[in-house]
Amino acid sequence: MLLEKIKNPSDLKKLNKAEYPALCNEIRKTLVDNVLKTGGHLASNLGVVEITLAYHLVFDSPKDKIVFDVGHQSYVHKLLTGRYDKFSTIRQFGGLSGFPKPNESKCDAFVAGHASTSVSAALGIARARDLMGDNFNVCAFIGDGALGGGMAYEALNDAGSSKNKLIVILNDNEMSIEKNVGGMSEYLSKLRTTKKYINTKDNVNNILSKMGKVGNVTKNAVSTIKDAFKYSAISGIIFEDLGFKYLGIIDGHNLENLTDVFERAKQIDGPVLIHTFTKKGMGYESAENNPEKFHGVSRRALIDDTDTIDYSAAAGKILVKKANENNKIVALTAAMASGCGLVDFSNKFPKRFFDVGIAEQHMVTMAAGMAKGGLIPFVCVYSTFLQRAYDQIIHDVCLQNLKVIFLIDRAGIVGDDGETHQGIFDLSFLTHIPNMAILAPTSQKELEQMIDYAIYEHNGPIAIRYPKGAISLDDNHTDFEFEKSEIIKDGNDVALFAVGKMNKFAKNAIKKLEEKNISAAHINVRCVKPFDKNTIEEYSKKVKLMVFLEDNLKNGGFASYVITNSDIKCPVLSFGWDDKFIEHGKPSILFEKYKLDENSVSDGIIKALEGEKIE
Amino acid sequence: MLLEKIKNPSDLKKLNKAEYPALCNEIRKTLVDNVLKTGGHLASNLGVVEITLAYHLVFDSPKDKIVFDVGHQSYVHKLLTGRYDKFSTIRQFGGLSGFPKPNESKCDAFVAGHASTSVSAALGIARARDLMGDNFNVCAFIGDGALGGGMAYEALNDAGSSKNKLIVILNDNEMSIEKNVGGMSEYLSKLRTTKKYINTKDNVNNILSKMGKVGNVTKNAVSTIKDAFKYSAISGIIFEDLGFKYLGIIDGHNLENLTDVFERAKQIDGPVLIHTFTKKGMGYESAENNPEKFHGVSRRALIDDTDTIDYSAAAGKILVKKANENNKIVALTAAMASGCGLVDFSNKFPKRFFDVGIAEQHMVTMAAGMAKGGLIPFVCVYSTFLQRAYDQIIHDVCLQNLKVIFLIDRAGIVGDDGETHQGIFDLSFLTHIPNMAILAPTSQKELEQMIDYAIYEHNGPIAIRYPKGAISLDDNHTDFEFEKSEIIKDGNDVALFAVGKMNKFAKNAIKKLEEKNISAAHINVRCVKPFDKNTIEEYSKKVKLMVFLEDNLKNGGFASYVITNSDIKCPVLSFGWDDKFIEHGKPSILFEKYKLDENSVSDGIIKALEGEKIE
Repeated sequence: MLLEKIKNPSDLKKLNKAEYPALCNEIRKTLVDNVLKTGGHLASNLGVVEITLAYHLVFDSPKDKIVFDVGHQSYVHKLLTGRYDKFSTIRQFGGLSGFPKPNESKCDAFVAGHASTSVSAALGIARARDLMGDNFNVCAFIGDGALGGGMAYEALNDAGSSKNKLIVILNDNEMSIEKNVGGMSEYLSKLRTTKKYINTKDNVNNILSKMGKVGNVTKNAVSTIKDAFKYSAISGIIFEDLGFKYLGIIDGHNLENLTDVFERAKQIDGPVLIHTFTKKGMGYESAENNPEKFHGVSRRALIDDTDTIDYSAAAGKILVKKANENNKIVALTAAMASGCGLVDFSNKFPKRFFDVGIAEQHMVTMAAGMAKGGLIPFVCVYSTFLQRAYDQIIHDVCLQNLKVIFLIDRAGIVGDDGETHQGIFDLSFLTHIPNMAILAPTSQKELEQMIDYAIYEHNGPIAIRYPKGAISLDDNHTDFEFEKSEIIKDGNDVALFAVGKMNKFAKNAIKKLEEKNISAAHINVRCVKPFDKNTIEEYSKKVKLMVFLEDNLKNGGFASYVITNSDIKCPVLSFGWDDKFIEHGKPSILFEKYKLDENSVSDGIIKALEGEKIE
Repeated sequence: MLLEKIKNPSDLKKLNKAEYPALCNEIRKTLVDNVLKTGGHLASNLGVVEITLAYHLVFDSPKDKIVFDVGHQSYVHKLLTGRYDKFSTIRQFGGLSGFPKPNESKCDAFVAGHASTSVSAALGIARARDLMGDNFNVCAFIGDGALGGGMAYEALNDAGSSKNKLIVILNDNEMSIEKNVGGMSEYLSKLRTTKKYINTKDNVNNILSKMGKVGNVTKNAVSTIKDAFKYSAISGIIFEDLGFKYLGIIDGHNLENLTDVFERAKQIDGPVLIHTFTKKGMGYESAENNPEKFHGVSRRALIDDTDTIDYSAAAGKILVKKANENNKIVALTAAMASGCGLVDFSNKFPKRFFDVGIAEQHMVTMAAGMAKGGLIPFVCVYSTFLQRAYDQIIHDVCLQNLKVIFLIDRAGIVGDDGETHQGIFDLSFLTHIPNMAILAPTSQKELEQMIDYAIYEHNGPIAIRYPKGAISLDDNHTDFEFEKSEIIKDGNDVALFAVGKMNKFAKNAIKKLEEKNISAAHINVRCVKPFDKNTIEEYSKKVKLMVFLEDNLKNGGFASYVITNSDIKCPVLSFGWDDKFIEHGKPSILFEKYKLDENSVSDGIIKALEGEKIE
């Protein structure tokens, strides 16, 4: 097997050209075999096999730097940079990360996980290189989906007017996680349909050969290449207008053309953008035909599991029901329609469904505009990506106290995707924003009642945050009331206040406490902000220890918010994530490792009650 | 005087056309006379007199909506929408806001203060209108500076591919707060120099008249207008590539052409962008010649005050000194070079100075790239605008523990600019981010020692936050040590821990306490994160009351962070901003109103010690 012999990228250069197709096949087979076992990103990686191989054939890693955007398309890069042996551990606790990670390899130039960051990071590295008099290449590798994000434009805008040498490889596959949207996407599509593919063998080489040696490519020559590449049906190339040299379109599965164009790009001073077109899922029929489904493959999706429904699906189902009742309801998402359970909504209410692409900032402010205009907008977003819109939540939504309803999916630890994706910041960045209300359900019934409350009773912004995973269908809960918690069980020694999914740990921990004859109250918090101050203060007069549990950072989280705003008369023990970034791994492993699981909770409480120092 | 008679925009329509020039003169005179007294934005408002007048002549406010971007150019709009009488109160406590404020007038369609939000908000309003079957016009009014912000692009991208009727008025004056930068700016400049100004009288009208009634303008007609407007020297119009109808360039001081083009735009279905070119400071010689200086006129700048130096100037001076010593130091800002005291730095080290324009997200991630590349980047930014880069601080800087040094200017209450600009969130959004260190100086000596520490000793990200206003030149401070506070004065009854400028209030409050024979310790916090846990816990064993003072929200701020992370043995009294947005007004007025001034502090402490309920 060829792939086994590639211990680092320089080994690639020892291969015979004739071996490349076989290597590409091996890579694809390795991707499919592993990802169907481990879960992860399949279609996007299948699409970039040739581009990644061409990159490593032409450039010199780790001296030359490649900055991946989003980073879920870095598996092929991992396979070619000495990580084939460990590839079966990808996305598993202690194993390889599913994203670029500088701690894992020198060939990973920069972290990635969120979208649209690569050009900024690469330009920073390029500018450092130039100021320090170094000499190497810097590439940003960005998909057309991430290109829709505003910060990618900010970076192109800056890079385009700079003199710094920088290569941007645009991987255009007409699809981010979902189908792409927006003017830029339509523009790229026009480019694709009206511009000829460049066969570098026939065109670029010929043009360049007429002008002498490649190393002597001058500004003039570059302009000529550019002109040769242009096709008159498109009025102009946006990237050129912004100051880039534009090379494209290149067939992203033609290895020879790719290596040629990369060689050319190395010779060009200043910013250059290579526009490649690829097929997501290339080489694996199921993924080619259904790239959305195979974008991210979860282990769960691979098992036939129809008995449970997850929070996302429940939220989507409830939204459809409410939208039938109330025609002011609209749903917005930023390339997370299927992830947030909105596919059915988007089919049933296409005019009331807005997928803005990877553009969380715009999504939130547009929702504010919609609320101002009398609609009831639901912003459906993963916790980690809502971070991108922190300023818009403050400035455009909360400052005007507008009724925007945030459905925050993937709140808390998400697990396999790791530190870039853990949704453990949202309570910390939301609780301090004036006018914002925050709720956390534990069951489908609660979720629906909270959504009902948000639609029909609440004035102003409100966030409902829930985790990845199965939702309880248990309807033994009392009815939801705003600013009230649910007392699940009374107790006299200790009171456990649990937010959302942590109620499960609280319940199990209490069983263990009872075995030790410790009488524990169990309170389902429900309302994070405003919280049920009365219940909290009353319990603090009665019990010896107040315990707070949340799947969020301790700093700035629910417990922190409560103790800042209430008069608690007894010691407090708080369970939440410590002040560090949390690596990837199954949530159950991480909860145990960081002592947030039910055993750690009961042990911690027992120790605290025994008078040991409360952490 | 004509202006006195304009009680609402419909009064404008009663004027004789011949009176317009006189009205424009009156508006300019009113602007100059007032702003030189009250402070505020002068040049930008002088530049939009004709555009704003034309808008109100053509459109029907408040039925039609105009969404201002940034909003500091809304003074003329205020004068024409019934606020002439109150105009002398602008930016003063209880008076008119310096920004659009829906609570102030129905004609203010949306709040503004931060950049690049208008197109998103306007598109949201337009989509609400269309879904609800309403019929009115929605305009976004955006400057070329704000157009460089990523979220404006996200919104144009979405709007361009939508079918919704929306008018974007681009006010192109080659300048945001500072001179504009970036590829888009150069592109606009190319458009200006190669495209002819449109005289609508000669061109548009003729074209339209050939095609029949204005109301019948069809898609074809629009294309023809567009073609007539195009000038072949520019390869293409980015805005058209994104899906907009482009009308331009229009002389932004030619009222007749402006009203004509606005009339035309009203007839066009779908998104249209009107490109106007204006002169910042138009009609006031000092402002025309020096628009940067007159962009924002502070009352202080109008007084000859050379005895004090402010934090910004001190920071800039220190940075120049350090950059002379260490050639790895670079400075980045997002259109805040003069505001952050960087003009001298930018002149002395032009290659090590990066003004990215209004693009905070890109700035922060590029700084991360620079740190990765071995430079020592200083990100110089106002507290309120750093909110825009919250996700980048987490994902690109802190996750990789990169040594990016944030100099956070205008931290705490800024006063006159009001609720959109108050820098009272930064401690709340930074303390919970893993790896981030946060310092707060009170004097020039401390600021320099903190910067020295950040450059030469600290590993990882660090933020130094300081307020608007004069810095103390007092050098009676002990030397700065990381993770240590400065004990200014010992005491036994109560301990006051003050962050940054709050030390002044603490000092004065302690004088009052001593008059009542209360022995108070005074501690200058210096290190917000990590804080001096030992000093805090030791004092909590000794005193009856721990007092924390910070010019930040209480929620998620320093006190909240401390009580979440330490074992405090006595009651706590915390002074910080309540959970609400704080209006405009002189800081001294606001501190008093919200009971954070020295008298409120001493009174609060006395009450708490007397056993009254601690708030």
